Amino acid sequence: MRYLDQIESPEDLRKLSVRELPEVAREIRERLIRVVSSNGGHLASSLGAVDLTLALHYVFDTPRDAIVWDVGHQAYAHKLITGRNASFDTLRRLGGVAGFPRRGESPHDAFGAGHASTAVSAALGLAAARDLRGGLEKIVAVIGDGSLTGGLCYEGLNNAGHRARNLLVILNDNAMSISRNVGAISAYLNRIISSPIYNSVRTDLQALVKTIPGVGSRVLETARRIEESVKNLVVPGMLFEEMGFRYFGPADGHDIPKLVEMLRRLKRMDQPLLLHLRTVKGKGYPHAERHQEYFHGTSPFDIATGKPKEENGGPSWSDEMGGALARIARSDPSVIAVTAAMAGGTGLSGFAQEFPDRFFDVGIAEEHAVTFAAGLAAGGCTPVVALYATFLQRAYDQVIHDVCLQNLPVVLAVDHAGIVGSDGPTHSGQFAFSTLRHIPGLTLLAPSDAGELKEMLAWAIAARRPCAIAYPKGAAIPARACEAAPPLSPGRSRRLREGHDVVIFAAGAMAGVAEVAADLLLQKGRSAAVIDARFIKPLDREAILAAARKPGRIVTLEENALEGGLGSGALTLLAEEGAAGAELLPLGIGDQYVEQGERSEMLASLGLDAASVARRILDRFRF
Amino acid sequence: MRYLDQIESPEDLRKLSVRELPEVAREIRERLIRVVSSNGGHLASSLGAVDLTLALHYVFDTPRDAIVWDVGHQAYAHKLITGRNASFDTLRRLGGVAGFPRRGESPHDAFGAGHASTAVSAALGLAAARDLRGGLEKIVAVIGDGSLTGGLCYEGLNNAGHRARNLLVILNDNAMSISRNVGAISAYLNRIISSPIYNSVRTDLQALVKTIPGVGSRVLETARRIEESVKNLVVPGMLFEEMGFRYFGPADGHDIPKLVEMLRRLKRMDQPLLLHLRTVKGKGYPHAERHQEYFHGTSPFDIATGKPKEENGGPSWSDEMGGALARIARSDPSVIAVTAAMAGGTGLSGFAQEFPDRFFDVGIAEEHAVTFAAGLAAGGCTPVVALYATFLQRAYDQVIHDVCLQNLPVVLAVDHAGIVGSDGPTHSGQFAFSTLRHIPGLTLLAPSDAGELKEMLAWAIAARRPCAIAYPKGAAIPARACEAAPPLSPGRSRRLREGHDVVIFAAGAMAGVAEVAADLLLQKGRSAAVIDARFIKPLDREAILAAARKPGRIVTLEENALEGGLGSGALTLLAEEGAAGAELLPLGIGDQYVEQGERSEMLASLGLDAASVARRILDRFRF
Repeated sequence: MRYLDQIESPEDLRKLSVRELPEVAREIRERLIRVVSSNGGHLASSLGAVDLTLALHYVFDTPRDAIVWDVGHQAYAHKLITGRNASFDTLRRLGGVAGFPRRGESPHDAFGAGHASTAVSAALGLAAARDLRGGLEKIVAVIGDGSLTGGLCYEGLNNAGHRARNLLVILNDNAMSISRNVGAISAYLNRIISSPIYNSVRTDLQALVKTIPGVGSRVLETARRIEESVKNLVVPGMLFEEMGFRYFGPADGHDIPKLVEMLRRLKRMDQPLLLHLRTVKGKGYPHAERHQEYFHGTSPFDIATGKPKEENGGPSWSDEMGGALARIARSDPSVIAVTAAMAGGTGLSGFAQEFPDRFFDVGIAEEHAVTFAAGLAAGGCTPVVALYATFLQRAYDQVIHDVCLQNLPVVLAVDHAGIVGSDGPTHSGQFAFSTLRHIPGLTLLAPSDAGELKEMLAWAIAARRPCAIAYPKGAAIPARACEAAPPLSPGRSRRLREGHDVVIFAAGAMAGVAEVAADLLLQKGRSAAVIDARFIKPLDREAILAAARKPGRIVTLEENALEGGLGSGALTLLAEEGAAGAELLPLGIGDQYVEQGERSEMLASLGLDAASVARRILDRFRF
Repeated sequence: MRYLDQIESPEDLRKLSVRELPEVAREIRERLIRVVSSNGGHLASSLGAVDLTLALHYVFDTPRDAIVWDVGHQAYAHKLITGRNASFDTLRRLGGVAGFPRRGESPHDAFGAGHASTAVSAALGLAAARDLRGGLEKIVAVIGDGSLTGGLCYEGLNNAGHRARNLLVILNDNAMSISRNVGAISAYLNRIISSPIYNSVRTDLQALVKTIPGVGSRVLETARRIEESVKNLVVPGMLFEEMGFRYFGPADGHDIPKLVEMLRRLKRMDQPLLLHLRTVKGKGYPHAERHQEYFHGTSPFDIATGKPKEENGGPSWSDEMGGALARIARSDPSVIAVTAAMAGGTGLSGFAQEFPDRFFDVGIAEEHAVTFAAGLAAGGCTPVVALYATFLQRAYDQVIHDVCLQNLPVVLAVDHAGIVGSDGPTHSGQFAFSTLRHIPGLTLLAPSDAGELKEMLAWAIAARRPCAIAYPKGAAIPARACEAAPPLSPGRSRRLREGHDVVIFAAGAMAGVAEVAADLLLQKGRSAAVIDARFIKPLDREAILAAARKPGRIVTLEENALEGGLGSGALTLLAEEGAAGAELLPLGIGDQYVEQGERSEMLASLGLDAASVARRILDRFRF
């Protein structure tokens, strides 16, 4: 590409004239669409932020000046012009360019991201560090309007406005977070943009005061006083002004020359500034502009039609959960669904359409989602809160306090628990069990197939106690044809396969891996029983103690951190029982973050695919 | 007492005339001061909310109408008039009245509390549940201005304003959270209260328009339009109005007749309402009004002098940490201290005075505290974030993502880790290890005495990597006179005592218990080695494997949940190494919340005092 291929760093960008930048933007969009159409990724947000990205790097002296991207969904253009154009075809692939800003990847990635609403806090930290050492560089935080639904962003603004440091916050407002944005602040931003009251009242007042004919001096003085007050009060962005920021905007976030001019002006100012830009999510790719939620995070697609390249192999765990929940809700009016800006991602779109009054999308506000659900439960409802495991981390304290300590009937549908693939470590669900297992009063389940997921959901809703059901990303394992599957009962596992040399206790979807591993072991003349643990808490004490007695060889298998998961739970149980002599091999994720890559690649690299599991069992027990 | 002793429930209160309520308030204050002077507790906030509490219960039909108290520091008066006057002498004692609202304790405690900023979310849940079943009861959330520094409160307001449900939020504004409040919102509230601009501009404008002499109709129309706009915009509480609440106030929160009148008016309205009250923290007890921070949460004191009844036995762990940090900061200018409204509680008051530019109190905003610290670290500083373990739960995701995944040199000073005594389960630090141990890249330490705490702090600051140091509440164990204590080295423990029958690995302060237990064992003819684990992560692999070989009997001892702590970590290590044959007895806190009571009482009830530990070791190993 004429421009892009010449840009090794923002230095090269700054050699161009402002007039040339729109063509650079066009090239970047073309490249983004091509790579994401092949690798999948966060397209729409990145397309919307191309022009802003160019203007920022054009005006600011990056990487000396620091740009902190919130969430990082929108940072692809930033990566392309900061030395990662050549390697960008590896986006989100094993060992390739990360889908989110990452400090280790480039000095231009001033702060890593992945979860929303952290940028203002992090940028304030950078600004405070700069001030302590007497530095003069500029710090810019780029947040989305969706980030503003998260409390952490507000904590950051509240502190930044108060501390009055030199800091520029850019609000990239596309009226969307992942799906359409919710909340009073979103409505407020919309009012700023659309309401003539906000934009004209100050002008009007000045006109009024000028047109008043010969009035007494007292009136004039009053008028002056009011003008002074109103000037301070009646400006768009009042809310940000009240929080200590000087507000500018709203302005067009796609007009590069104007952006450059504004940023140059703001760069000279020395206080907390907020620049409010309107952008279009998906800008420049008509399919993405039309289907903003779909193209927020997309699988590979055909550029001409915008359609997915391949069917992704049957309904996902999320789809199964959403469908099952809607069925239950038809006969149980107490059932409510709560999610945090992830109606589509958690499979709840159908539920939302069928039960609009019983569906709550609270925005990117997981803490609120859980405490709100606890309030619903205290009021007699049975809320099901569907969150990805990685985002549930945000609400850990609320699960402990507001749900479990109060023993309220809230069901957590913990989606994307375990290995998440190409989103990488910032979205890894590897701690799902470790986050939850030590919380007293919580029942934690993991389904081994879609049939069990449905059963577990119905069971948890009926149980009227704090429950969590954890299941992974991707296509669900179809219900096993299991003639005599016993009904669910707390702390009771389900035997999938008999065997007498070793017993594999598997958590959730890893039961499928265990079954294949058992086949492989059989080829080596060893017979392994496979047990679907079902309840990660409470564990099946009886089955574990029986296996400890005979055959005395136990394996636990989970796509969760070894610390705090099924394996360490089973070990603690055996130790408390004094079941010495039994040998337990815990297989799970060691003390590391899970990097990006396909699920199968990651399982293999972690030693958790069937071949590795079989090999590790043979190595350990040397039957 | 003339009134209070007759009040079994708010029904009885409502039989009184409004004129009699101030006398009830006086009696309540007297009772509060007496009980807290004897039991300790949260006095100042509760004194400030007495008048409001009476007015609320007088006007609203509680418990049908629900009051949700944020944090619960201020709910003692509520407890006294809702059936807990007779038992109030047991406040915060083992088996007694809880220091915080608790659903199990009374139907008047609509939602439990303990951590800040949950009330609006919980109340919104109750309101949504009410609306779904077509109920007509009122829901009131009482928040402090300190709660407004927490992001969760904002998430709740953002959703509540948007949902437009019938909900009354009362902002009990005493300009303090625990210590003096911080942040832009706090400044904003102060402006509302003190600035004539905010209070007079609307009146002025109306006056202006009226005094304009014969003006043309275009001007009049403009004036009307402006008045309309300004009426909407220029009212005190704009910020809340922008968030969808109708704002009332500021008003005097101690004028009971006026409060009753206002609440009656608001009760008839059907939308999100916010009533802003000014109150005085400590109201009615001069010592508490003067020393609001000290009397926020106080130990037993002499009523006449306001002085503590007894010296509490030497410097606390918090004092030791704060003192050591200040000493290190004198020679290392990169060291920064961050806390969340707990400068006093975490021992940082001295640091704050000595290094005002390097001390950051971010308000009740633990998420921000940790991400802000990560930003400071990315900017070259070495921040030490001092939080109670229970509040660190709020920042779990930020520790994973913003600190550890990025491998930034942030030191977490995890205060009140373990058993916390009379604050009870909402403040329990029993999960400190479980929250942190599974996070890759984090080094987790626990000091067994004050000397080790100081060493660990210096070591962690010098280590330039994510570290957490966990220590309990209360008086620190003085530095042991240990001639040959080896210097700190990751994953290396410290042997406190030799012994050949069993090896006790103790975490932090529990080393002291282990030493006494070893004495008791010796009396039974058994010799126990005692090892101070020092590093909870990484564990001392060598020492644990050596103990597994000989004597083959290991005990782990911790004031942490068994799941995810030292014990399950040691078990996982042994299992991964295939060290079958060794027997490990994990002693810690079982699957339960730790209730309120003295530390010694709780240790005994959990089987973690020295006598129980010795007995359990003898029972298990039957040497």
